Amino acid sequence: MIIVMQSHVTDEQIQLVQDRLSSMGMQPHVSRGIERTVVGAIGDERAIDQEALEALQGVEKVVRVMKPYKIVARESHEYDSTVKIGDIIIGGKALQVIAGPCSVETKAQMDAAAEGVVAAGCRLMRAGAFKPRSSPYAFQGLGVEGLEIFKSAANQYNLPVVTELMDVRMLDVFLTHNVDVIQIGTRNMQNFDLLKEVGRTHTPVILKRGLSATIEEWLMAAEYIAAGGNHNIIFCERGVRTYENAYRNMLDVTAIPVLKRETHLPVIIDPSHAGGKAWMVPALSRAAIAAGADGLLVEMHPEPEKAWSDADQALSPKELGVLMGELQGIAAVLGREL
Amino acid sequence: MIIVMQSHVTDEQIQLVQDRLSSMGMQPHVSRGIERTVVGAIGDERAIDQEALEALQGVEKVVRVMKPYKIVARESHEYDSTVKIGDIIIGGKALQVIAGPCSVETKAQMDAAAEGVVAAGCRLMRAGAFKPRSSPYAFQGLGVEGLEIFKSAANQYNLPVVTELMDVRMLDVFLTHNVDVIQIGTRNMQNFDLLKEVGRTHTPVILKRGLSATIEEWLMAAEYIAAGGNHNIIFCERGVRTYENAYRNMLDVTAIPVLKRETHLPVIIDPSHAGGKAWMVPALSRAAIAAGADGLLVEMHPEPEKAWSDADQALSPKELGVLMGELQGIAAVLGREL
Amino acid sequence: MIIVMQSHVTDEQIQLVQDRLSSMGMQPHVSRGIERTVVGAIGDERAIDQEALEALQGVEKVVRVMKPYKIVARESHEYDSTVKIGDIIIGGKALQVIAGPCSVETKAQMDAAAEGVVAAGCRLMRAGAFKPRSSPYAFQGLGVEGLEIFKSAANQYNLPVVTELMDVRMLDVFLTHNVDVIQIGTRNMQNFDLLKEVGRTHTPVILKRGLSATIEEWLMAAEYIAAGGNHNIIFCERGVRTYENAYRNMLDVTAIPVLKRETHLPVIIDPSHAGGKAWMVPALSRAAIAAGADGLLVEMHPEPEKAWSDADQALSPKELGVLMGELQGIAAVLGREL
Amino acid sequence: MIIVMQSHVTDEQIQLVQDRLSSMGMQPHVSRGIERTVVGAIGDERAIDQEALEALQGVEKVVRVMKPYKIVARESHEYDSTVKIGDIIIGGKALQVIAGPCSVETKAQMDAAAEGVVAAGCRLMRAGAFKPRSSPYAFQGLGVEGLEIFKSAANQYNLPVVTELMDVRMLDVFLTHNVDVIQIGTRNMQNFDLLKEVGRTHTPVILKRGLSATIEEWLMAAEYIAAGGNHNIIFCERGVRTYENAYRNMLDVTAIPVLKRETHLPVIIDPSHAGGKAWMVPALSRAAIAAGADGLLVEMHPEPEKAWSDADQALSPKELGVLMGELQGIAAVLGREL
Repeated sequence: MIIVMQSHVTDEQIQLVQDRLSSMGMQPHVSRGIERTVVGAIGDERAIDQEALEALQGVEKVVRVMKPYKIVARESHEYDSTVKIGDIIIGGKALQVIAGPCSVETKAQMDAAAEGVVAAGCRLMRAGAFKPRSSPYAFQGLGVEGLEIFKSAANQYNLPVVTELMDVRMLDVFLTHNVDVIQIGTRNMQNFDLLKEVGRTHTPVILKRGLSATIEEWLMAAEYIAAGGNHNIIFCERGVRTYENAYRNMLDVTAIPVLKRETHLPVIIDPSHAGGKAWMVPALSRAAIAAGADGLLVEMHPEPEKAWSDADQALSPKELGVLMGELQGIAAVLGREL
Repeated sequence: MIIVMQSHVTDEQIQLVQDRLSSMGMQPHVSRGIERTVVGAIGDERAIDQEALEALQGVEKVVRVMKPYKIVARESHEYDSTVKIGDIIIGGKALQVIAGPCSVETKAQMDAAAEGVVAAGCRLMRAGAFKPRSSPYAFQGLGVEGLEIFKSAANQYNLPVVTELMDVRMLDVFLTHNVDVIQIGTRNMQNFDLLKEVGRTHTPVILKRGLSATIEEWLMAAEYIAAGGNHNIIFCERGVRTYENAYRNMLDVTAIPVLKRETHLPVIIDPSHAGGKAWMVPALSRAAIAAGADGLLVEMHPEPEKAWSDADQALSPKELGVLMGELQGIAAVLGREL
Repeated sequence: MIIVMQSHVTDEQIQLVQDRLSSMGMQPHVSRGIERTVVGAIGDERAIDQEALEALQGVEKVVRVMKPYKIVARESHEYDSTVKIGDIIIGGKALQVIAGPCSVETKAQMDAAAEGVVAAGCRLMRAGAFKPRSSPYAFQGLGVEGLEIFKSAANQYNLPVVTELMDVRMLDVFLTHNVDVIQIGTRNMQNFDLLKEVGRTHTPVILKRGLSATIEEWLMAAEYIAAGGNHNIIFCERGVRTYENAYRNMLDVTAIPVLKRETHLPVIIDPSHAGGKAWMVPALSRAAIAAGADGLLVEMHPEPEKAWSDADQALSPKELGVLMGELQGIAAVLGREL
Repeated sequence: MIIVMQSHVTDEQIQLVQDRLSSMGMQPHVSRGIERTVVGAIGDERAIDQEALEALQGVEKVVRVMKPYKIVARESHEYDSTVKIGDIIIGGKALQVIAGPCSVETKAQMDAAAEGVVAAGCRLMRAGAFKPRSSPYAFQGLGVEGLEIFKSAANQYNLPVVTELMDVRMLDVFLTHNVDVIQIGTRNMQNFDLLKEVGRTHTPVILKRGLSATIEEWLMAAEYIAAGGNHNIIFCERGVRTYENAYRNMLDVTAIPVLKRETHLPVIIDPSHAGGKAWMVPALSRAAIAAGADGLLVEMHPEPEKAWSDADQALSPKELGVLMGELQGIAAVLGREL
């Protein structure tokens, strides 16, 4: 940790910083430059409250030199780790495309959707039984009944299911219904109590990025889950909020190489929620795979125009099939398999 | 609701939009212009899924004409509403400054803090017993014990207490401990299950704005609470995330006049979390009151440099006292009372 | 154009809006809904000042239904247009990678760079003689001398040159030095006098997106050039400013499919200025081509670690060669040629 | 300057960093911590290219410890400086409200506007003869003729005039027409050639903040002007671009205390372009003055609803008069004069 002092700092102020560092178990080291004095501090800065130092008189800024995350950091685990869902692997050489509708609607819709997932060559299925909706007057999902319809449709094809957990009180229901992958949604990326609870299970978790979360905050959210003992974490970039309104969210494709450098865990992309329009999905999906993502979470609906939610962003089964062909071509260029 | 069609739209596509609108209970009305055809739809658009229309072929965009919020809307309640906490009123002519430390630390700290709150002329007290921290390795708050220390310190001066609820499972504990005002934090503004539960109580709620929430999303989050029956809602702007890194968050002072136009509910400002530095707090506090806010939620610590969290943003009791004097002057210019 | 009136609008206010529209040459049409009255206006809205209508009493918002751009719009030109630079084509089936150093430094550096460009299989060269630097104390480019060194190096390999024009007073110098492609940089995307002047030439223009320009503003900046008669315009996305600071700018990969839908003109990507680090460039470049871009503008320096500016973002000639191989693979999947 | 090395750095890499620093005239100093080695560098870092260091192998990040700006920095000039326009002072104890229409339209409009400016108690007048418009098809201003109409109207009341310079080729015309204050607009904040030229004059300059400029970039733009010899610089915050679309731009009120700490130069606010609606202007104006701004640049039109541009954001002369009264009250609370 490095403490940069203000230009007109006094010796007493420098001494106070040194004393405070020592009391925190850090070893201070003063370096006087031409315009600035800098205090270096040797020790484990992760336990240190940076603001307590910034509050001291004469301190201009405090710069951390260590990464705040440990378990999820590539520094602690040099090689790519993979997450296993039954006999399906996410990460490493294998790419996975997880497809399915936004919401569970009816048994017929889910049966058709499961069939479409398999027909397109995908091996995992997604759908929402509990929906986070910005309006209290909008469809909120079928709830537990939806979970049952989903599992029943997916089981016909041995498809593991991915579904979102919003309420910590529903975790037991998810576990007893054998949800294969728990999705933590954008709005809950920093719902720390929820993160702690899924950290106590061993169920794989897809951790979506918060709408304006920094990559560092996202890694720290994963660290919450990992610190509880659950290391089966998959990052999912789904677009962030910016000033641009020509589409819904801006897919942060740069996050892919950055995460690959910072963490050993798999990274997938949700191209559907990013752009918000089905016609953008193929371009964004190809970009994600080309940039090095380990897979996709994509919306597909047997009849997109009739979907009960997010109708405008779902691919048809046929469109998904075409896209899979393109992605296989790109995967081959990169020496990967889909 | 207005549906703008693409430039080369066909009659069949226009007909399909009309049919879909009719099936949704809306009355369609086609208007053909020079470059674009527009379909107007008369009826209650709040129950309509905008995306289901955008998914139809030939549709370029859908524009809502109604406000999506009802109970919290000024349209439904022309005059300012107030929130009563015991005999203290927030909103209307009265301004309130809610002060106290970031975290409950010790009995001595809270006793000194409560004394400082009263000495500065404030009438409500804030402190956190459960802390949302971006790192799992940081101090997470004293929990229920903290709640008890807080209530005990505040009771000496009959100060109502404001404290943050993060976990829906703790709501009963908050109610049995007579928390006077429940704070919903930035990270939970769209934790819809939490909103629904506090909506079932009658305890006043301070609803902080999400880190990158639009004003409309924020109003809709309040609508979740209001729809449950709890109309005692206070909006709290606390800075939003932008590209600027000269300070922590950008205080959205424009949100004050906008909210005053859109909702009848009170609006307060948290200048401490916005800027993130104690030296910015007086300027931001004065700006907020001058712009028409109904009060402040401000961090004050008996010994700021020793605070266990957010040390760098707390005022000392003496600084708070000076600020209160300035705010009283500005309140008088605006015909309000503090 | 659609004018949505406020909820408690009077008949006089509606009449005033109609009168104003008529005086602007638009044909008004009133539609009364349950909660809102809407006035539609038929006519060419591009010449209308939207704010003059928003300023009228009782008006809530004004919604445009036409695109504000004409010449650059896909609506006016259904098929992809291409830009020819000598016998090299940008757009259509052909992809182009424009490579070279950030700044012209020395004759030796530029000779080596030109050799590297050709060796990697690229057909156009970039370098800056006039540099926009945020500090007045930083290296500002070699100026006209740099232009001469650049042309001389490029001419050895018949490479057309791309270089940035910052000052409208230098346009004649660019023309007499036979600059093949004029680059308008990020900071000048809305330097309207500069846009007008390059619009009077026939030299191809690469128009970089402003740091926080919307896609619509960018299209309008191109419309300024096109309105002057120069239709040889190439859009270049180079990352936009967001809250994220894990890298320099966020590459907006979604802008590629959106531009492809909105305009007939070619779209290229600058992966070097986007991420700001050489190690991110391959991933971003692959993503751009996979998303449908017509080419890249990429920094390559014969000895990156010794570059006088942007050292950390340039590829070495060898790295560029490897990247070209990957891009050729992706191009083939999409049925394109590089 | 501090260079933080990666975790698995080699001795050779550290040596290379030291050698490079020495060759740049800096004195390196190595400090080995538990997880990271840090190289401190003593010397004038302003002339150093940070990226050249970041490009070296084994370097994780480079942290500057000095401010990049000198002449405009408060560090170099402890007390507030003021800018004199004739006998009118901006900065120090005195507040100034500069008012007038967006565009010069007609002689009658400008005469009425000048009368309104004086009647409201303002002492400087603003209006635009050259208008930066996002559409090439929109009214671009009356040009030199507008300048003459403006000067003639203002001269009747001895009002100094403030007007925007967009094109460097028009600077001489501005000087021969005795423009009292040159405004550099948002889109030209980093038009470095324009900044250099106004830096060679002694005419006071209002430097508006770029639409998404950081405060540091803005200070550096001012440094460009100051480095040329012109220290008569006034910063003008006018709202920045964010994700929020409930209004036009977000007024960055926090920039006021931050600038006051970083620079000795005056700071004013443009509340009209920030919010974009006349009804927001009073709240934003009061907030700005309460936060410590040295004045305002506000749009006032004799007949707002008939303005040729920005109609929806201009105050009427009467509204401006009422606002002036409120601002005088707030100024008095802060011990300032308006």
